[in-house]
Amino acid sequence: MHNLIGREIPDYIDGYGKTVPFSGVFAARPQMRRYAPPVKAVRPGESKLVKNLEEVFTRIPVRDGMTLSFHHHFRNGDEVVNDVLATAARLGIKGLNVALSAIFPVHAPIVDHLRTGVVRSLDTNYVSGPVARAVSGGLCASPVVLRTHGGRARAIECGQLKIDVAFIAAPAADDYGNVNGTSGPAACGSLGYAFPDTEYADTVVAVTGHLVEYPLAPISISQARVDYVVVADRAGDPKGIVSGTTRITEDPVQLRIAETAAKVIQAAGMIEDGFSFQTGAGGASLAAAYFVGRMMEQTSVTGSFILGGITGHMVEMLDRGLFRKIFDVQGFDLEAVRSLATNPNHVEIGSGFYANPFNAGCAVNRLDCVILGATEIDTDFNVNVVTGSDGIIMGGSGGHSDTAAGAKLTIIVANLVRGEWPIIRDRVMTVTTPGETVDVLVTDQGVAVNPRRAGLLRVLRAAGLPLCDIDELKMRAERLAGGSRVAIPGNKIVAIVEYRDGTLIDVVWQG
Amino acid sequence: MHNLIGREIPDYIDGYGKTVPFSGVFAARPQMRRYAPPVKAVRPGESKLVKNLEEVFTRIPVRDGMTLSFHHHFRNGDEVVNDVLATAARLGIKGLNVALSAIFPVHAPIVDHLRTGVVRSLDTNYVSGPVARAVSGGLCASPVVLRTHGGRARAIECGQLKIDVAFIAAPAADDYGNVNGTSGPAACGSLGYAFPDTEYADTVVAVTGHLVEYPLAPISISQARVDYVVVADRAGDPKGIVSGTTRITEDPVQLRIAETAAKVIQAAGMIEDGFSFQTGAGGASLAAAYFVGRMMEQTSVTGSFILGGITGHMVEMLDRGLFRKIFDVQGFDLEAVRSLATNPNHVEIGSGFYANPFNAGCAVNRLDCVILGATEIDTDFNVNVVTGSDGIIMGGSGGHSDTAAGAKLTIIVANLVRGEWPIIRDRVMTVTTPGETVDVLVTDQGVAVNPRRAGLLRVLRAAGLPLCDIDELKMRAERLAGGSRVAIPGNKIVAIVEYRDGTLIDVVWQG
Repeated sequence: MHNLIGREIPDYIDGYGKTVPFSGVFAARPQMRRYAPPVKAVRPGESKLVKNLEEVFTRIPVRDGMTLSFHHHFRNGDEVVNDVLATAARLGIKGLNVALSAIFPVHAPIVDHLRTGVVRSLDTNYVSGPVARAVSGGLCASPVVLRTHGGRARAIECGQLKIDVAFIAAPAADDYGNVNGTSGPAACGSLGYAFPDTEYADTVVAVTGHLVEYPLAPISISQARVDYVVVADRAGDPKGIVSGTTRITEDPVQLRIAETAAKVIQAAGMIEDGFSFQTGAGGASLAAAYFVGRMMEQTSVTGSFILGGITGHMVEMLDRGLFRKIFDVQGFDLEAVRSLATNPNHVEIGSGFYANPFNAGCAVNRLDCVILGATEIDTDFNVNVVTGSDGIIMGGSGGHSDTAAGAKLTIIVANLVRGEWPIIRDRVMTVTTPGETVDVLVTDQGVAVNPRRAGLLRVLRAAGLPLCDIDELKMRAERLAGGSRVAIPGNKIVAIVEYRDGTLIDVVWQG
Repeated sequence: MHNLIGREIPDYIDGYGKTVPFSGVFAARPQMRRYAPPVKAVRPGESKLVKNLEEVFTRIPVRDGMTLSFHHHFRNGDEVVNDVLATAARLGIKGLNVALSAIFPVHAPIVDHLRTGVVRSLDTNYVSGPVARAVSGGLCASPVVLRTHGGRARAIECGQLKIDVAFIAAPAADDYGNVNGTSGPAACGSLGYAFPDTEYADTVVAVTGHLVEYPLAPISISQARVDYVVVADRAGDPKGIVSGTTRITEDPVQLRIAETAAKVIQAAGMIEDGFSFQTGAGGASLAAAYFVGRMMEQTSVTGSFILGGITGHMVEMLDRGLFRKIFDVQGFDLEAVRSLATNPNHVEIGSGFYANPFNAGCAVNRLDCVILGATEIDTDFNVNVVTGSDGIIMGGSGGHSDTAAGAKLTIIVANLVRGEWPIIRDRVMTVTTPGETVDVLVTDQGVAVNPRRAGLLRVLRAAGLPLCDIDELKMRAERLAGGSRVAIPGNKIVAIVEYRDGTLIDVVWQG
């Protein structure tokens, strides 16, 4: 069976079940109801405080084969996942499904838990570091389910990802389970990725190092949904949230790409009052945001909102009045944390609000423009951010496919060559984001417009941008890389790439 | 069939169905799942703006027999209910169930809609004015379901009250359905009673007079749950939210009751750091809060939170540092609205968070003390706030039974005689709140302690409070009233009084 974009999808995959092939960005129309978690009752005087993780495991109780969920706001400073899984290992629990919204190098102990059988399967939106390499090598008994940020919120809300126990890494909590991410010494900012888990898990456990007098305020996660509060040394190390570089690139090639991307946005007529924008935290993305901000200033434009993972650079744009609001699903640095705590125009949002395609309208639907990266892009504009060209897992969609689907203008920025590999391929190793949702590719050697966007092509040409056909760019890339190699994947499916609506856009073979 | 407190409850009631008798305050243990509303999908570019109510009726479409829900934050200034029902009448729709969290004199047009059959039944937590009299007179084809504020949240979350269309009176909204109650000329403050409706209704419509540029912030009700936005002249008249008197009583009898209530709280050892408190907006309640505040100041005590419907007097206590937080489910005056908009320690909460007995822990569970009123109380401390002693409906529980169940100390304040009726009865006309949850009755002629509270009786006696047996107080009341009359009810059930857990605590017979 092949899906709409020609990727081979087995009818049935062991450890996953029957598959539904991707059939178009907005083709799926849900005919279902939300997941219905069990109803609770807590009487006055009952305490939720539990002295440690072992005791909470016993009280729930956590059993073999359960799905435990976690959020990734502490990123590479996360400590709760490792503590919880070490507890499971100590108690002899086996076969857990770990639904962790993103996996970082700090989560290396998961590799051992996969070996010993404590963990049987993983469900995540992004995976890097030792766990990614282990998964690519075939260590996981069941294929990893790779989702988008919006797709995870959807899967939880619609009951495809059923969570037995959600663990909340809580920078601050009171003894009745009110939680926020902006108070206390381990403040990490938004807790938005944990919102669906909290709402739909059968049991919710908050783990905090900062227990405050009842009641905590502001409240991001409510006592009405939290069953237990465990006091630990801390919820995580906020220093670990800083994502790669948070400084604007000084590399002239990257700066040129960034400036070109900004010119594309301008030529597309988007630098107008009400402009909404999302970009990543990498050096080139930050540079593009800088150029966009300068254009807005020069033309006295006030944007409506900045969306997604937030850095101090975006906070500065809010503070300078370039945008009216920030919608923050995750903080990428401590400036973002401080701003969320103090500026009422900096708004914490959940991942469902951010990007769930199956609710009454998510925020990505209102995006004018998003700038995204790629490890590969094919001549039909399908983008890979899951694997390298060598087929080894090194990331995941996160909000990539969600924002691409929602935004009016989706720009991919990339150097034509990545390591030794040309970035443009006849066929990407793995499709994360369908070409239907990608409008423009900006490289160091020219700009290619998706032929589906004839109108956009005209205005960009009129603006004098260095346009070329994507096939031409591909040839340049191959010349620069010294030819196009194709990695030969193994014959075992190690990961399943779900599109945001839950259909299968691709699978990852053993690398 | 008689329930635990001896009230006769038919097995089956026409228009309601099979009944479950009240069997104790915390006896019911839920074995069920939350209601699962239908999953939606909204694509980029789709608009939620609808030009008027008629069009939204057609788009949904609203059909005969549906349940339409409304919240009562505009109280006697509400306009949305009348506008929506007038639209239904114009379109020839019949047999609607109106689930409006509280009904005020302004809702008089409902009487006509009951006569013409546009409205068939009512589901509410409080009903006063012409609708109350019409219901008592037997105008409603089905008995009215009277719930508590927490019970309504529970019934919606647990699927006993299924809402086809929830209408949100939105002081401010953007075109994608983000709503708050604190912005714009018709700001009414908290929208907490609308939170369960928004989360669980099949369709949600926001009606606003103040449409702002996307995105609105702060967000109380989210675009992810709102299907349509209708722009009207205004959402309601905020002048109508002011509830009766908002000034401390000057009546010496009321002042004595209030001061005695404060002394009871002090004698019970509650004036300590972390004290939490709820009281109503009447003159005597405000006076009691004043005396409590003075005691806190004199002993340098800092309370934790004030809960419930909020007035400027409570805001002043927050501002003066007597309490650390306010949990606000409803504003009773414009000072409360202003404070909610500007003070991060003044927190908007939903009715589920406030008082739903079937979640992971509601705020009333953490209350130290609540001061409540009564139209009648019997010698077993059962309280009536639904009907007068004449059997005519004139109110409802609202948060009465919820807070009484949650608080460590529940104080009823009342004059011994109400109109011509003694307030203490052998048997109240209607039971709203079970005596098991009522600790102390404070009257102008003495204080009676529930004999279930032997320890409390000792400390209040030691403190020199004017204690008497409730039977003795009853005799005094009868002497003052010139005897005890008993109204003879009719033989048709006009209302069902659900306890907060959904069991039947009483029924109301035609008056």
